[in-house]
Amino acid sequence: MSEFYMPPRLADLDIPVGKRIRLHRLLYEHGPGNGRLLILPIDQGLEHGPLNFFPNPDSKHPIYQYELAKRGGYSAIALHYGLAAHYLKDYAGDIPMILKINGKTNIPSDDDPLSPLTASVEDAVRLGADAVGYTLYVGSPRQDEDIMQLAEVRSECDYYGMPLIVWSYPRGSAIAQKGGRDSFYAVDYAARIAHEMGADIVKVNFPKLNPEKDKAAPAPYDSLQVDEVEAFRQVVQSAGRTFVLVSGGSKISDEDLLDKVRMSFQAGATGLIFGRNMWQRPMDQALALTEKVKSIIESV
Amino acid sequence: MSEFYMPPRLADLDIPVGKRIRLHRLLYEHGPGNGRLLILPIDQGLEHGPLNFFPNPDSKHPIYQYELAKRGGYSAIALHYGLAAHYLKDYAGDIPMILKINGKTNIPSDDDPLSPLTASVEDAVRLGADAVGYTLYVGSPRQDEDIMQLAEVRSECDYYGMPLIVWSYPRGSAIAQKGGRDSFYAVDYAARIAHEMGADIVKVNFPKLNPEKDKAAPAPYDSLQVDEVEAFRQVVQSAGRTFVLVSGGSKISDEDLLDKVRMSFQAGATGLIFGRNMWQRPMDQALALTEKVKSIIESV
Amino acid sequence: MSEFYMPPRLADLDIPVGKRIRLHRLLYEHGPGNGRLLILPIDQGLEHGPLNFFPNPDSKHPIYQYELAKRGGYSAIALHYGLAAHYLKDYAGDIPMILKINGKTNIPSDDDPLSPLTASVEDAVRLGADAVGYTLYVGSPRQDEDIMQLAEVRSECDYYGMPLIVWSYPRGSAIAQKGGRDSFYAVDYAARIAHEMGADIVKVNFPKLNPEKDKAAPAPYDSLQVDEVEAFRQVVQSAGRTFVLVSGGSKISDEDLLDKVRMSFQAGATGLIFGRNMWQRPMDQALALTEKVKSIIESV
Amino acid sequence: MSEFYMPPRLADLDIPVGKRIRLHRLLYEHGPGNGRLLILPIDQGLEHGPLNFFPNPDSKHPIYQYELAKRGGYSAIALHYGLAAHYLKDYAGDIPMILKINGKTNIPSDDDPLSPLTASVEDAVRLGADAVGYTLYVGSPRQDEDIMQLAEVRSECDYYGMPLIVWSYPRGSAIAQKGGRDSFYAVDYAARIAHEMGADIVKVNFPKLNPEKDKAAPAPYDSLQVDEVEAFRQVVQSAGRTFVLVSGGSKISDEDLLDKVRMSFQAGATGLIFGRNMWQRPMDQALALTEKVKSIIESV
Amino acid sequence: MSEFYMPPRLADLDIPVGKRIRLHRLLYEHGPGNGRLLILPIDQGLEHGPLNFFPNPDSKHPIYQYELAKRGGYSAIALHYGLAAHYLKDYAGDIPMILKINGKTNIPSDDDPLSPLTASVEDAVRLGADAVGYTLYVGSPRQDEDIMQLAEVRSECDYYGMPLIVWSYPRGSAIAQKGGRDSFYAVDYAARIAHEMGADIVKVNFPKLNPEKDKAAPAPYDSLQVDEVEAFRQVVQSAGRTFVLVSGGSKISDEDLLDKVRMSFQAGATGLIFGRNMWQRPMDQALALTEKVKSIIESV
Repeated sequence: MSEFYMPPRLADLDIPVGKRIRLHRLLYEHGPGNGRLLILPIDQGLEHGPLNFFPNPDSKHPIYQYELAKRGGYSAIALHYGLAAHYLKDYAGDIPMILKINGKTNIPSDDDPLSPLTASVEDAVRLGADAVGYTLYVGSPRQDEDIMQLAEVRSECDYYGMPLIVWSYPRGSAIAQKGGRDSFYAVDYAARIAHEMGADIVKVNFPKLNPEKDKAAPAPYDSLQVDEVEAFRQVVQSAGRTFVLVSGGSKISDEDLLDKVRMSFQAGATGLIFGRNMWQRPMDQALALTEKVKSIIESV
Repeated sequence: MSEFYMPPRLADLDIPVGKRIRLHRLLYEHGPGNGRLLILPIDQGLEHGPLNFFPNPDSKHPIYQYELAKRGGYSAIALHYGLAAHYLKDYAGDIPMILKINGKTNIPSDDDPLSPLTASVEDAVRLGADAVGYTLYVGSPRQDEDIMQLAEVRSECDYYGMPLIVWSYPRGSAIAQKGGRDSFYAVDYAARIAHEMGADIVKVNFPKLNPEKDKAAPAPYDSLQVDEVEAFRQVVQSAGRTFVLVSGGSKISDEDLLDKVRMSFQAGATGLIFGRNMWQRPMDQALALTEKVKSIIESV
Repeated sequence: MSEFYMPPRLADLDIPVGKRIRLHRLLYEHGPGNGRLLILPIDQGLEHGPLNFFPNPDSKHPIYQYELAKRGGYSAIALHYGLAAHYLKDYAGDIPMILKINGKTNIPSDDDPLSPLTASVEDAVRLGADAVGYTLYVGSPRQDEDIMQLAEVRSECDYYGMPLIVWSYPRGSAIAQKGGRDSFYAVDYAARIAHEMGADIVKVNFPKLNPEKDKAAPAPYDSLQVDEVEAFRQVVQSAGRTFVLVSGGSKISDEDLLDKVRMSFQAGATGLIFGRNMWQRPMDQALALTEKVKSIIESV
Repeated sequence: MSEFYMPPRLADLDIPVGKRIRLHRLLYEHGPGNGRLLILPIDQGLEHGPLNFFPNPDSKHPIYQYELAKRGGYSAIALHYGLAAHYLKDYAGDIPMILKINGKTNIPSDDDPLSPLTASVEDAVRLGADAVGYTLYVGSPRQDEDIMQLAEVRSECDYYGMPLIVWSYPRGSAIAQKGGRDSFYAVDYAARIAHEMGADIVKVNFPKLNPEKDKAAPAPYDSLQVDEVEAFRQVVQSAGRTFVLVSGGSKISDEDLLDKVRMSFQAGATGLIFGRNMWQRPMDQALALTEKVKSIIESV
Repeated sequence: MSEFYMPPRLADLDIPVGKRIRLHRLLYEHGPGNGRLLILPIDQGLEHGPLNFFPNPDSKHPIYQYELAKRGGYSAIALHYGLAAHYLKDYAGDIPMILKINGKTNIPSDDDPLSPLTASVEDAVRLGADAVGYTLYVGSPRQDEDIMQLAEVRSECDYYGMPLIVWSYPRGSAIAQKGGRDSFYAVDYAARIAHEMGADIVKVNFPKLNPEKDKAAPAPYDSLQVDEVEAFRQVVQSAGRTFVLVSGGSKISDEDLLDKVRMSFQAGATGLIFGRNMWQRPMDQALALTEKVKSIIESV
C-alpha cells in the first residue's frame, strides 16, 4: 500500500464539529458501533414505486423498516421527507435518520437523468437527521445541473455541520457507451468525483468486471487484469478520505450477500447500505441475516 | 391486514399544529363531519376551458358551485386564485376553501406536462384557505422540475401549517408506454410518491384494471390477479399516513357514482372530490345526489 | 340569464382599496366616465415594428397618441416603459397611463410564444400608472413559463393595489390545430383563464365563427349554432367578475368599427381598446370617430 | 416634419438627475462638446477575437485606444470590464468610460444569439462609468431572454442614474429570412424597440437599401422608394426621444467614412461610434481622420 | 515591441489590495519567488477520473501531490473543494492553495461544454485560498451561460480581493470547425477573452501550428507565417495585463517539457501549471524535473 494513503478515520478528519458529532453517532453510538456502518434505506417507493414491496407486503408500511432498523440495531435508516416526517416520532432517539434529499421516479427514460431535490438540508436539521443523502448521476448529460445542485447542498452541509452522503451512480447514455454503469471505470470515477466534491461518505455499487464490455472503457480500464476485490480496493482508495458504503442492490441469496459483505470490508469499505436484501425478507429472516452481517462486521 | 399498518387518523399524526387545526376544520367541522371528506372542485375552467360548463350553463358562474357547496354541506370548495379572490367574501366562514396553486390549459400536447404555479402558499394563507392543492404529474419527463416545485410548496406548507393536498396524476408519454395513467401500477406509484414527498392528503383516480394494457407495466403489475377494490385498497395502503381522496373524473351515472363511493370507502379512502359529477347536474339533482353520497359516507 | 350571474360592478367587487381607487379613476373619472372604458394602446411599435405608423406618419411620434388620448378624452393610454418614461410628464394628470409590462417582436416564429417582461409592477407604481397590462399567450407550448410569470405579476399587483389587465391571446401551434386563435373555443378559454388567474380586466378579441375551422375545436364548440354576439356574450360571462375589453385589431372601416362597438356592449363588454383603428387616421378623423364611439358608449 | 416630433435635447428630457449629469458630461464636457457624441469602442477583442488588431498591431494594446481617445478628444471610450479595470486609472478624468456589460464570442452559430452579461450596472457605478452599453439582438429566437435581461439592466440604470446605451442589432435566423439585418425594416425596428424599452441612446447601423432582398420584408418595407438618408431619417424618428448613434462597422475608406458622417447628421443622428475605422489606422492617421470627423460634427 | 505594451508587473497593476496581497504570496513568497509561477494542479480526478493516476499509483493519493508541491517548492497547488477541505490542514502555510471552483466529468459529449460550479468564491475565502480557478469553454455553444457564470465569479473575486485564474479553453463543436482548439486563432482568442472578462491570470495551452487545419480559421489566422514561439508571444500580448500561465497537458518527455518551459518564458509567460508531467513521475524524478524547471525559471 502506498505510503501516501491511510484509510479515513473519524478522529483524523478535518471536519466541522457538527459533522464530527453526527458521524460519531452513526459510527460509534449506533449499529455495529465499531466505526463501521450498517444502514437500512427505504427510498425505493419513490425511486421504483411500490413494486419492490410485493415480495414482502409488510414492507410497504414504513413501520416495518423502522422496526427492523431498531430491533436489528442498524446505524441508521435512510428515507425521504414524507417517511421521516410521518413516522420518526415513535423512534426518535432509537434509530438515527438519514434524510434522502433528492429523488425521482424511474418512469421516464434514464438517458440523461437528474435527481431533483425533494427536501433541503434545513429540513434535515429540523427533523434531527444525522446525515443527508444526495444522488449524483455521474456522467449524465445533465451533469452540469447535478454538480451545481450538489455543490449547493455540500455548502449547506458544511454550514450546518451535517454529514453528506453521496449516492454516486454512473448513469445515462454516455456511460452506457463506455462500458456501462457498473464497470470498474464507472465506479472508480464515481468514488473519486464524490470525494473531490466534498462528500463525507460515498455510496457505490460493487464494480463488476466484464472483459467484453470493458473494452469500451478508456485506457487503462479497457485491458486491466484485476479481480473484483482488487478493483474495489482501488475504488476505495480513489475515494481517499471519504468513507465508502457498499450498496446492496436488488435481492440476492444469503450466501452471495455475505460474500459481498466479506469482500467489501476486505477491500476497505467502511460500511454497508442494504435495503431490499433485508426488508424483502420476513422480519425473523431479516433479523437473522442482519445478525450474520453484523458478526462479520464485528470480526473485521 | 399487516400489523405494521394503521389507517391514518388525525389525532395520531405528527404534524404542525396549524395543519392540525385546518385539517380538523375540514374533517370534523364541515362536510360529513365524521372524519370523512367531500370536496367540490371547480378548477376545470382553467384546466379544460369553459367547455365543461355547457351541460349545465349555470355552472359557468362560480356562485353556482359556492351555493352547491354551501347548501350541500361540503367539506370544502377547491379552486384557483381568481375564483377565490372574487367570490369568497360572501361565503366566508360558511365553506372552507382549498386554494389550487398550480394549473395549466390542456391546449398543448400532454407528452411532458408540468403544471405551473398560479398562486403561492402565502396567497392561501392571506385568503384564509384551509389547504392548498398541487398537481404532480407523476412520471412526466419534466418530473425533475415538478418534484422540486412541489418540494418548495411542501416546505412552505410546513412553515405556515397549511395542509398540502397533492393531485397525484400519472401523465406523459412515458407512463403511456407502461400501461397508461389509470393502471394499478400508475395509481399505486402516484399514491406512494405523494406520501414520500410529504403530502397530507393525496387525490388519485380509482385504478382501472385492463389485463391487456397492464402487460406493459413492470412486474408484478403486469400479471396481478386482483379486483379493483383490492387494487385500490393496496393503493390506499401505499399512501401510508397520507389521507386518500378519490377523484370523480368526468360525469357518470348516479348508480356508477354511488358504487364508486361505496368501493372507495371499502378500500379505505378518507374522502371524495367530485366536481363535474355534481355541478354538471341542476341544483336540485346535485343536492339530491350529494345527500345520497353523504348517507353512504355517514354509514361507513 | 342565470340567477347566478351578475355583470361585474366596481362597487360590488372585493378588491384591495388601491385597485378600487385606480379602477375608479379609469371607469368614472376619465374617458366616458360612466363605468365604461375606452383605451388607446400604442405598443405596436414594439410588437410589430414601426410599420404600423406608415399609414399615418404622425402616429410614429408618441405625442400624437398622447394628444389624441387627451383631446379625445380616452380613459387611458397603454404603452411600454420607454414611451411612458419619455413622454408622460407633459400629460401627467390629464390622461391615465396603463403600463404594458411585457412584449416581444413578431420577427421570430410564433409557434411557441412567450412575452417577456419589459418592465415591472414597481415601475408602474413609480410612474404613477393606473393599471398594468400583461400579455398571456393562452395555449402556447410555453404556457408553464407564462402562467408562472403572470402569477408573480398578479401577486405584485395585489400587493401594490395595481389593477391587472390581461391581454389574453390564444396563440401558438397547438391552438392553430384546434380551430385557430379567434375561434369561440379559443376566445372563451382565454377569457376564463384570465378570470381564474385573478385579472381585474381581460382584453380579448371578438370571436369569429367559422363552421369549417371550428370542427377542429373540442366539443361542444365543434358544432355550436350561435351567432357572434351570442358567442361573445358567453365569453363575457366566462370572464365572470373580470371586466372585458374588446380589442380593435387591425384597421377596419368606420361602419364595421361602430358595429363592433355596438355588438360589444350588447354582449356585455365593459370597454374597448382601440389603437390602430384610431391613430392610423389623421387627428381630425380620429377625433371624429372617437366621438361616434363615445356616443354609442354613452347610450348603452 | 411632423408637428409631433422634436429631436431629443438633453435639457428637455424627463430623466433622473444622475443620468442628466452623466449625459451632460458625454454631450457637453468631452468630445465635440456641442451636444454631439464621438465614441471610441474597443469591445472587438471579445466579440471577434484579436483578429481585428492585425491590420494595426499597436491596436491590440488597449493603451493605444486610450491614447487615441484622449489625444483625439473623444466623448468616451467603450469597453468591457477587464479593459476598464486594468487600464482606466491612468486616464481617470481625461476620458469618460462607457462600460459594455454584455458580450459574446462569434465562434458558435449566430442563428439564435443572446449576449450574456459580462458585468453589472453596479460595476459601472464602481468604476465611475458615465454610461453602460447593452447589446440587444432584435428578433433573435431567444429575444424573450434578451428583453428580460435588458429590462433588468434598464431598471438598475434608472435606479443608479446611469445612462443606458443599447447596441440594437437585428440578428438571427428569423431576420435573415425577412430581408436581412441591415435592411431599413430591420434597422427601423431596432431603433424603435430600444426606444420603447427605455434606452437613453441607441446604436444602430446605417440601413442598406437592397430592393431585391427587401422584398422579403413585411409591407410597406418590401416596396418603399426612399434613399438611404431618408431611410435613416425615419429610423432616427422611430427612436423618438432616444439619441441615435451611428455604428462605424468594418473599416472603409476615408471618403466613404466622411460621407457616412455627413449623412448621419443630415438624418438627425446625435453621434458616431467608430472603432475599427479609427484604431485600425496608425496613430497619426487616426488622429487626422478624427479631426476631419470632428470638423464635420462642429459644422452641423 | 509596441510602445503601447508593457508586460504586466504586480506593482503596476490597479487591483484591490486583497488581490495584491494574495498575488504577492504566489509570485514572491512561494515557488520560484522571482515573480514567476510554478503551479501543481490536481483536478484531473474530477475531469478525467482516476485513470490519470495509473502510471504512478501513488499519485491517486492527494498527499502525494501535496508532498511534491511542498518538497519541490511550488507556488501553489490547485484542486477542487474535497481535496482542499480534506487534506489542507497538514500543509497550511506551507503551500498556497488555489481552489478550482468549477469542473465536470469528460463522460458525456464535449460538443457544447459548460463547467458547473463545484464550489464558491466564499468557500475559497473560508479555506484560506490565494486564488480561485475557473474553466471557461471559449466558443462553446453554451458560452452565454458560461460567460454569465464567470462574470458573477469575477464580481465576487473583486469583492473579496480574491485573484481569479481563468482556465481559458477553446472547446466544442464550433471551434472544432474553425481549426480546432489548439490553433493560434483559438488560443489567441482564449487569452483575450479572459483578459476582457477581468481575469488576473489566464491559463492557456501552447498554440500548435498546423497549416492544413488552420485554413479553416478566420483571416488572417488562416494564412499566417509564424513559428510557435512568435505565435505564443502574440497570445501573451493579447492577454494584456493578465498574467499568462502555460498548461502542461498530457505527459511528454523531459526534453520536450524543458523546451516548452524555455519557449514559454521567451514568449513572455509569467508561469507554468504542470500537473501530469510532474506527478505521473515517481517522487524523486518529479523533484529532479521540478528542479530543472525552476533553474530555467530563475535564469529568465
